[in-house]
Amino acid sequence: MRYLIAGAGPAGSLLACYLAARGHRVDVFERRPDPRRGDDEEGRSINLGLSARGVLALERAGLMDRVRPLTVPMRGRVVHAAGRTSFHPYGTHDEEILHSVLRRDLVTLLIDHAHGLGARFHFGRRVTDLDRQAPAVQVEGEWIHGDAVVGADGAFSTIRTHLHRGLRADHHQEFLPWGYKELTMIATPGFRLEALHVWPGGDGLIVAHPNRDNSLTATLFLPYDELEAITDPEAFFAGRFPDALPLLPDLAKEFAANPVGHLVSVRTTPWHHENKVVLIGDACHAVYPFYGQGMNSALEDCLLLDASLDSFAAFETARRPHTDVLDELSRENFVELRQRVASPMHAARKRADLLLARLLPGRWRPLYTMISHTTTPYADALARARKQEAFLRWGAAAVTAGLGLAALTKLAGRNTGHAHRSR
Amino acid sequence: MRYLIAGAGPAGSLLACYLAARGHRVDVFERRPDPRRGDDEEGRSINLGLSARGVLALERAGLMDRVRPLTVPMRGRVVHAAGRTSFHPYGTHDEEILHSVLRRDLVTLLIDHAHGLGARFHFGRRVTDLDRQAPAVQVEGEWIHGDAVVGADGAFSTIRTHLHRGLRADHHQEFLPWGYKELTMIATPGFRLEALHVWPGGDGLIVAHPNRDNSLTATLFLPYDELEAITDPEAFFAGRFPDALPLLPDLAKEFAANPVGHLVSVRTTPWHHENKVVLIGDACHAVYPFYGQGMNSALEDCLLLDASLDSFAAFETARRPHTDVLDELSRENFVELRQRVASPMHAARKRADLLLARLLPGRWRPLYTMISHTTTPYADALARARKQEAFLRWGAAAVTAGLGLAALTKLAGRNTGHAHRSR
Ligand SMILES: Cc1cc2nc3c(=O)[nH]c(=O)nc-3n(C[C@H](O)[C@H](O)[C@H](O)COP(=O)(O)OP(=O)(O)OC[C@H]3O[C@@H](n4cnc5c(N)ncnc54)[C@H](O)[C@@H]3O)c2cc1C
Ligand SMILES: Cc1cc2nc3c(=O)[nH]c(=O)nc-3n(C[C@H](O)[C@H](O)[C@H](O)COP(=O)(O)OP(=O)(O)OC[C@H]3O[C@@H](n4cnc5c(N)ncnc54)[C@H](O)[C@@H]3O)c2cc1C
Repeated sequence: MRYLIAGAGPAGSLLACYLAARGHRVDVFERRPDPRRGDDEEGRSINLGLSARGVLALERAGLMDRVRPLTVPMRGRVVHAAGRTSFHPYGTHDEEILHSVLRRDLVTLLIDHAHGLGARFHFGRRVTDLDRQAPAVQVEGEWIHGDAVVGADGAFSTIRTHLHRGLRADHHQEFLPWGYKELTMIATPGFRLEALHVWPGGDGLIVAHPNRDNSLTATLFLPYDELEAITDPEAFFAGRFPDALPLLPDLAKEFAANPVGHLVSVRTTPWHHENKVVLIGDACHAVYPFYGQGMNSALEDCLLLDASLDSFAAFETARRPHTDVLDELSRENFVELRQRVASPMHAARKRADLLLARLLPGRWRPLYTMISHTTTPYADALARARKQEAFLRWGAAAVTAGLGLAALTKLAGRNTGHAHRSR
Repeated sequence: MRYLIAGAGPAGSLLACYLAARGHRVDVFERRPDPRRGDDEEGRSINLGLSARGVLALERAGLMDRVRPLTVPMRGRVVHAAGRTSFHPYGTHDEEILHSVLRRDLVTLLIDHAHGLGARFHFGRRVTDLDRQAPAVQVEGEWIHGDAVVGADGAFSTIRTHLHRGLRADHHQEFLPWGYKELTMIATPGFRLEALHVWPGGDGLIVAHPNRDNSLTATLFLPYDELEAITDPEAFFAGRFPDALPLLPDLAKEFAANPVGHLVSVRTTPWHHENKVVLIGDACHAVYPFYGQGMNSALEDCLLLDASLDSFAAFETARRPHTDVLDELSRENFVELRQRVASPMHAARKRADLLLARLLPGRWRPLYTMISHTTTPYADALARARKQEAFLRWGAAAVTAGLGLAALTKLAGRNTGHAHRSR
């Protein structure tokens, strides 16, 4: 079989590993230059949180031992608010951690590995059209035929557009009215590096992942109008995020140089045409990044598609309900991260969640734990969390009713005065 | 000002009337042939329910007196279920009716009127591209420049696609997994013509609007797989809609000849670019047809845009929240029409609604009444209905609590035995 893959991001390059390992002929077309040559400024500093689903997909490809040395463990979340910091461990177990990795480091490793297995990469080659029936892709005016085409070309997928042409395709695409800007932080002495750092700021938010060189990649998320209104970044940070300012030595220069990023979410169907074309990763389910699951779900897609190469339809049917749930959760987590992370009530709820998990080992699992630290399918995790929640409510209701009845009996007792005494 | 309008459907042709009446230069490009020549088979038998919003928009253009003779009043809904029919009047007042009109009759009248005011129509001319900055439209390879472009080119709008190119556009497009087929009914003696007729059928539904010639245009809605599986339409109707069968003299022939229609809903933004391009009607808010508001909201757009020609941005900001609500209501009404219309509980609720409206004149207005028989903006109607609903629930809760307290007091009394007697 000859597979043509559009896009050498995390999804396209890991799938190339899986397919090449099965002995298939694989050609990957990537519009950007070879990341190994280091002349692609665009993807320079982006780093991502790798968690259980991504880890499993990389392990199955026999790659985790080579990925781990590229990562920095994040053992919990440090929240910076009102000049103080608090640390919230991710889980009850030592393995419940995230791994911060540079996108370029990860993709480079995947490309090298796939290449070693015989896959061919064509950089600087943009796919411009698809013939879904052939199937074939057009690259620089030339039609290239294969047995199957995989669209791993990200949220604005060209393969998806042409796959859907003339079909009754459902498509939901939504931009958050917030943009983001990436900035480099340098850790000051005593700074806890092995964590994800969050600066909540009402209508605004900074998230930072650590790198291996004592720096962190920080992402400032802000409503567009506010982001575009910033003329003096130092003054802005001094006012809104004063405790982040000392960590940003290059602020003014980077702020001027780095572009504003956009946040898009995509839910769509169909993901496939017969066994000829299939989409994976952001091309079929891009999510807001606030649950840290975009890349992880893209890598998980590779593992699932690898097990369903004989039926792209089965892959879509089994997978889509789960990524739809991920979309929902990622939206909710946006609200959570920006508003509740700073509130004592939120911290108390999180602590109660972890306490319940300790008290009821194996029986109570916080939703965040299931999403980030297990490979329970997303919708199953949500269903289980809802059941737990209902259980909690019924318990609370039962207790309240008990207290209420007691109170009412008391009240009735008081009303009937000496009657009680006479019993 | 020179306005270029893409699409001579209800929205494009009414807007041409408004603009030409203001003395603007208007060119309308329509890809289909001139409906007045009668050689366009595609739009032949479609008829639509015109209600308050559409009526107002036509009245403001001074056209309602010429439209009315083309319509058949529908004074309520006749539900055909289990071999019996029941009539449910639409409202408490005589004016609370719908008007059934052939799309071709209405559009022909609008085109004639706009033409009389100086608008120019170009039939058989498809718009293929837009330069939103110029602004200009491409028609058969030629670029035509104007001062503003209006996209009134329906749910699959070409203007919209090009307006959004490269922008952060939100776009939600969803197909109902149901198709539809149009069929001609001939009324049998005693058949009540002045009504909308519904045959609910679980996973399936027929809706029929009367025409002026004793016929009705019936639309069969069915899940695709069922619709495509029908090989013998007579047998299908005999099994599923036996009481509709005698009304369908040409069933077999029409079923074979008429295409399957698709139902799409579209929510999208932006609707405009500066004061150069703007979308109206289905091009920016297509809804499932089960609330009968698609054309009515498209006509209402013309009235609102006419009042906001100096700011397309203001038009979108004011209007979009309302059509978003219409989308929501149209989805809900789908469930209502197909399932609950046949249930006695549903009829009882509707009757209670109308009764409340009579008991509390001016204070209680059923949601359906506000949407179909008033011009209260959609979101305001929904907000008011929710308030009424909450009021009802609180009332019910108060009553229940009253009864409950009484019961508890009684219980307490029984518990405390002779104590009560001793008071
Ligand atoms: C600010 C931010 C923070 C994030 N943080 C996290 C995180 O912590 N954890 C996590 O799991 N996820 C995170 N994500 C999400 C993650 O980046 C994506 O989900 C992931 O990159 C998707 O991988 P992909 O391979 O499907 O698509 P992409 O990474 O978008 O790769 C697509 C590739 O296809 C190429 N391409 C596009 N079009 C064409 C074409 N026509 N022809 C040829 N090539 C083409 C592109 O150049 C690109 O290389 C974050 C996203 C953002 C924006
Ligand atoms: C089964 C069904 C029943 C319905 N019942 C009702 C009802 O009872 N009441 C109600 O209010 N609504 C109803 N509707 C909805 C109603 O039909 C639409 O909302 C209404 O037609 C929208 O009007 P429009 O002018 O915006 O778009 P359209 O009616 O779609 O008109 C668009 C026009 O643009 C033309 N066009 C398209 N592309 C181009 C191009 N590139 N260049 C030039 N011209 C182009 C098309 O040929 C068409 O003439 C129903 C819809 C369906 C499907």
